[in-house]
Amino acid sequence: MIASVCRSLFLVLVVLGLSAGPSVAADRDKMMVEPGVYGTFAVFRVDSSWWRLERSVRISGLAHAKGVVERHQARVAIDAYLMRGLSDQGDFMLRVHATDLQHTQDFLVEFMSTIFGQFATNTVTMKGVTKKPNYTAAFPDDVKSTLQTLSDPLPKPFTIVIPIRKDAEWWGLEPEQRGGLMKEHVDAATAYIKAVRRKVYHSKGLEDFDFLAYFETGKLEEFNDLMVSLEKVKESRYSRPVNHPVLIGVTKSLGEVLQVFGR
Amino acid sequence: MIASVCRSLFLVLVVLGLSAGPSVAADRDKMMVEPGVYGTFAVFRVDSSWWRLERSVRISGLAHAKGVVERHQARVAIDAYLMRGLSDQGDFMLRVHATDLQHTQDFLVEFMSTIFGQFATNTVTMKGVTKKPNYTAAFPDDVKSTLQTLSDPLPKPFTIVIPIRKDAEWWGLEPEQRGGLMKEHVDAATAYIKAVRRKVYHSKGLEDFDFLAYFETGKLEEFNDLMVSLEKVKESRYSRPVNHPVLIGVTKSLGEVLQVFGR
Amino acid sequence: MIASVCRSLFLVLVVLGLSAGPSVAADRDKMMVEPGVYGTFAVFRVDSSWWRLERSVRISGLAHAKGVVERHQARVAIDAYLMRGLSDQGDFMLRVHATDLQHTQDFLVEFMSTIFGQFATNTVTMKGVTKKPNYTAAFPDDVKSTLQTLSDPLPKPFTIVIPIRKDAEWWGLEPEQRGGLMKEHVDAATAYIKAVRRKVYHSKGLEDFDFLAYFETGKLEEFNDLMVSLEKVKESRYSRPVNHPVLIGVTKSLGEVLQVFGR
Amino acid sequence: MIASVCRSLFLVLVVLGLSAGPSVAADRDKMMVEPGVYGTFAVFRVDSSWWRLERSVRISGLAHAKGVVERHQARVAIDAYLMRGLSDQGDFMLRVHATDLQHTQDFLVEFMSTIFGQFATNTVTMKGVTKKPNYTAAFPDDVKSTLQTLSDPLPKPFTIVIPIRKDAEWWGLEPEQRGGLMKEHVDAATAYIKAVRRKVYHSKGLEDFDFLAYFETGKLEEFNDLMVSLEKVKESRYSRPVNHPVLIGVTKSLGEVLQVFGR
Amino acid sequence: MIASVCRSLFLVLVVLGLSAGPSVAADRDKMMVEPGVYGTFAVFRVDSSWWRLERSVRISGLAHAKGVVERHQARVAIDAYLMRGLSDQGDFMLRVHATDLQHTQDFLVEFMSTIFGQFATNTVTMKGVTKKPNYTAAFPDDVKSTLQTLSDPLPKPFTIVIPIRKDAEWWGLEPEQRGGLMKEHVDAATAYIKAVRRKVYHSKGLEDFDFLAYFETGKLEEFNDLMVSLEKVKESRYSRPVNHPVLIGVTKSLGEVLQVFGR
Repeated sequence: MIASVCRSLFLVLVVLGLSAGPSVAADRDKMMVEPGVYGTFAVFRVDSSWWRLERSVRISGLAHAKGVVERHQARVAIDAYLMRGLSDQGDFMLRVHATDLQHTQDFLVEFMSTIFGQFATNTVTMKGVTKKPNYTAAFPDDVKSTLQTLSDPLPKPFTIVIPIRKDAEWWGLEPEQRGGLMKEHVDAATAYIKAVRRKVYHSKGLEDFDFLAYFETGKLEEFNDLMVSLEKVKESRYSRPVNHPVLIGVTKSLGEVLQVFGR
Repeated sequence: MIASVCRSLFLVLVVLGLSAGPSVAADRDKMMVEPGVYGTFAVFRVDSSWWRLERSVRISGLAHAKGVVERHQARVAIDAYLMRGLSDQGDFMLRVHATDLQHTQDFLVEFMSTIFGQFATNTVTMKGVTKKPNYTAAFPDDVKSTLQTLSDPLPKPFTIVIPIRKDAEWWGLEPEQRGGLMKEHVDAATAYIKAVRRKVYHSKGLEDFDFLAYFETGKLEEFNDLMVSLEKVKESRYSRPVNHPVLIGVTKSLGEVLQVFGR
Repeated sequence: MIASVCRSLFLVLVVLGLSAGPSVAADRDKMMVEPGVYGTFAVFRVDSSWWRLERSVRISGLAHAKGVVERHQARVAIDAYLMRGLSDQGDFMLRVHATDLQHTQDFLVEFMSTIFGQFATNTVTMKGVTKKPNYTAAFPDDVKSTLQTLSDPLPKPFTIVIPIRKDAEWWGLEPEQRGGLMKEHVDAATAYIKAVRRKVYHSKGLEDFDFLAYFETGKLEEFNDLMVSLEKVKESRYSRPVNHPVLIGVTKSLGEVLQVFGR
Repeated sequence: MIASVCRSLFLVLVVLGLSAGPSVAADRDKMMVEPGVYGTFAVFRVDSSWWRLERSVRISGLAHAKGVVERHQARVAIDAYLMRGLSDQGDFMLRVHATDLQHTQDFLVEFMSTIFGQFATNTVTMKGVTKKPNYTAAFPDDVKSTLQTLSDPLPKPFTIVIPIRKDAEWWGLEPEQRGGLMKEHVDAATAYIKAVRRKVYHSKGLEDFDFLAYFETGKLEEFNDLMVSLEKVKESRYSRPVNHPVLIGVTKSLGEVLQVFGR
Repeated sequence: MIASVCRSLFLVLVVLGLSAGPSVAADRDKMMVEPGVYGTFAVFRVDSSWWRLERSVRISGLAHAKGVVERHQARVAIDAYLMRGLSDQGDFMLRVHATDLQHTQDFLVEFMSTIFGQFATNTVTMKGVTKKPNYTAAFPDDVKSTLQTLSDPLPKPFTIVIPIRKDAEWWGLEPEQRGGLMKEHVDAATAYIKAVRRKVYHSKGLEDFDFLAYFETGKLEEFNDLMVSLEKVKESRYSRPVNHPVLIGVTKSLGEVLQVFGR
């Protein structure tokens, strides 16, 4: 039996191309930093009936799904995260960046039509758009330069996505008041700027919350410290509960994620 | 295999008549603008067991469903939206306009009785009725004429439906007070009147919220700006959370939507 | 195929006895107006696997279910409503009136044990008891006589059921204070008394809300006006959110409702 | 067919032993009145696939389940309630009293491992422990003696279980303050002490609410009056909403409950 | 039949190795007391279709799952709890301690890929990280020494896990203010320190709550007293409701837990 398991693991590795990362769109780098890019977080739970398929069917299904992802990487930038074991929201998450949300839909519709996609229930979808920073223009120069500090080059395997909603009082403040509160927020985050990479998506109108905060870190304990620090500043008092989950996963290549379902 | 896929795609295109839009009721134009019209938003999720049917069964099932829609277009106006990939609420949405809500039910009951309908779970239904504007009569002439500005002729593929509930304090205000607050609301929306098409349905009594705001836009980033602007006016402070989801989809012909499930 | 469909539709009509209404209990009229009667609203969603049964099995299953209803009409008064297409809460609703809630249970247990009942998930059940009016004794004579106005004889096909919860402050008011607020409530409803038929069930202790308001109307737009009027009076400020759905359906004979599932 | 139904009903009656009540543990009487007893309310919904089993399999499965209950009655006191038709939370409820909660688990684990248990989803479980009364020691003698009034000997078929949570302000009151408020609560209940039997379980720490109030009555209308009276006293203002359902059922022998699923 | 049951129970005992506890990681003791350790609580519900597998398949599936647990004990510390019968959240819970959360994921992904894991739905996952105490440094010496009191050596079979969220006001307090409130909290807990073992995990950022409080006790009634005492101190007023469940189970060896599903 062990021999058979090894052989089939080998098969998985070959078909899913574990060693190579996913092929990447030419404009991925631009989409990662520019405003006006739509970020969609789609979470999937693999149905238990998936495991009742023949292993060969599963492996060719996974290879097909992987091919769909690769083909669409020319137009959309796709990242994969393994959630299984760390979240009760689903098994894996795809983050799709696109300058046109229809490209995101085109990709996900095709992905969900593959054999594998047919067994993957889309449990959570949250989305937002990147924008130019609202408040930083008015920040002092030292804060601005702090914000441009790059995070350290250490691996940041853990990804957390948090939906945020501000109350009506927040939105009724004058821009300078919000700017002042946001500067205090940034000051509280300064100590963690190297350990935690951060990205913000604007969701009002697309969701019933206002922002998606996306984090990557290798140090979850420091990330917890950061979140406590942010809760202590006055800006946090303007938040109100959201009926959408916090998502957590581990960044993986798509092949690594799919491999879990090809065993 | 490619040849077989192409052939079957061709079959889908022929049977579902992708090139032609749905046949349209004579009084659709009236229903789109008049008061006293019931708008129903019915969201469906296609069961994964649908994909286990023979492709020919699926295609004839879809053709049957399409025929039901076309037949009912004489009495009700039906629009289709693809949600799959952009929403965790379902795969597609039908908007049904009717002067008598029983016509809407007649249509949806027959649609849900088709083979395709039997595999499509109705996850969300929200509805409301169109009414004459409440406050505009008292608005200054320039605001009135702004409100009559047509949206620009650019395509507006994205549709968003947002349920809204005002609190008891709002309803306890004098009509002039509410009118004043609504004028401020309209002023905040003026800059976006060309980029975003809007329609309001009154839902109190039919749902446990008060209004359905329906939007069409091609520019989701501007739509996000609009929503932020609206949150900043005092009227937004009278809103309270609703236990119903925000819906998002892409306007498609019915054939295009059904085609997704005929692959 | 058309011939076969027609034949089977004919079969459905014959077996389910569409033309005749359900046989009616001798004391139905009394149960409709007296205090101390328990009203139970049971919503059912028909499982999609129902459609995979042979048509003849389905039709005999429906006939059996109809027989159970008819037999129990001697002790309980049963009304049927088609919700499919208008509500995401289920496909149909039964309202059961009984002077002893055990009679209601006896009926529903037997109904749910039929072949049809085994495929019908009971998604929502809400109940309450009718009581003598609390506040009307102290109302002025003209208000009393208004309350005795009969609704107009026009058909009222639409039924809406709304669970209501008042806050602790409401219950802490003196009876005269509540009476005064209720008179204002009644005054606001006066204009709609002909277009909307109304019935109230007391639910505190049986549910985690206080009342079920039951409405029948043919004019949903006027019903929306009524609900807006009622929200504007002070009594509405004592309501608090309820975690149970608003139900909507169309009054049908039981045969008409069952026919939907016999196609 | 009627003959066959009669024969199988007879079979059910014989196997499930309808005429005899469940065998009862020696210390049941003590467990019903003493402090330090754990009460667990476990609600089950019978899966619709249960009905697709052969009737003989179902009947022997039910008999096996009944045997498990009887065997455990030596250590735990088990009561059965039929919820089907009156509640959307499930089909039946078991109340298990035990001096050690592990005995409750031992029983329920074995019950859920029977063929019948495998088809019965455990939808709701709520539990608490009985304690000596907190406040009565300081009550005037007449109130104390009122509390010792036995309920009348009339049948009390209806059982209602209500989870209750008090807010932080309540728990921050001095004991005498809470005692004073509870005396007012008891006074409001006095008129109903004969018609409604009552029992309280303490749940804080075991659940995210504070108490389970258990009621038995034959007069649901009076029970509604009682609940309205209790809401009117000041103590009710310290309650806050609970995310757990109110349960309602009819007390039956276990055989009567199981018989519903053996038809 | 009894003989056959006995034989198969014997088989279960042999294969699942009931007599021996799980093999234990070398650094388990360190992980139980040190800061910077990630604790993950993963709850599983066994699908009813599990019972339709051949008993021999089930037993070898359970043995495989047990083997996966044992192999991973070298890197992660795994505890097992039987929830079935006491909780509607699931059938069993695994607590996984790891210095790197990726090790936890590696284990749970492999566990969920076993035959048994494929039939076990992961209904709830909650996690947090251990940290050095925040406030104790400033506590008086007698309180510090109280906190170091070991719990009594009596068995503590019951485990309760409670998610906790503090409001923005709490986080906005000065550290000394929070310390003062926490000292009052600790004082209230002193009387129970022997009967209840306690552990705290910090979850902010990883979950949408702030802490997981983990308790072990053999005396649930005293545990209820403890929780009431804690609610009475001012610190409790800064808590706000959490949309995650309280978990309860009985500590068992993994073999004992799995045995339930091998009958």
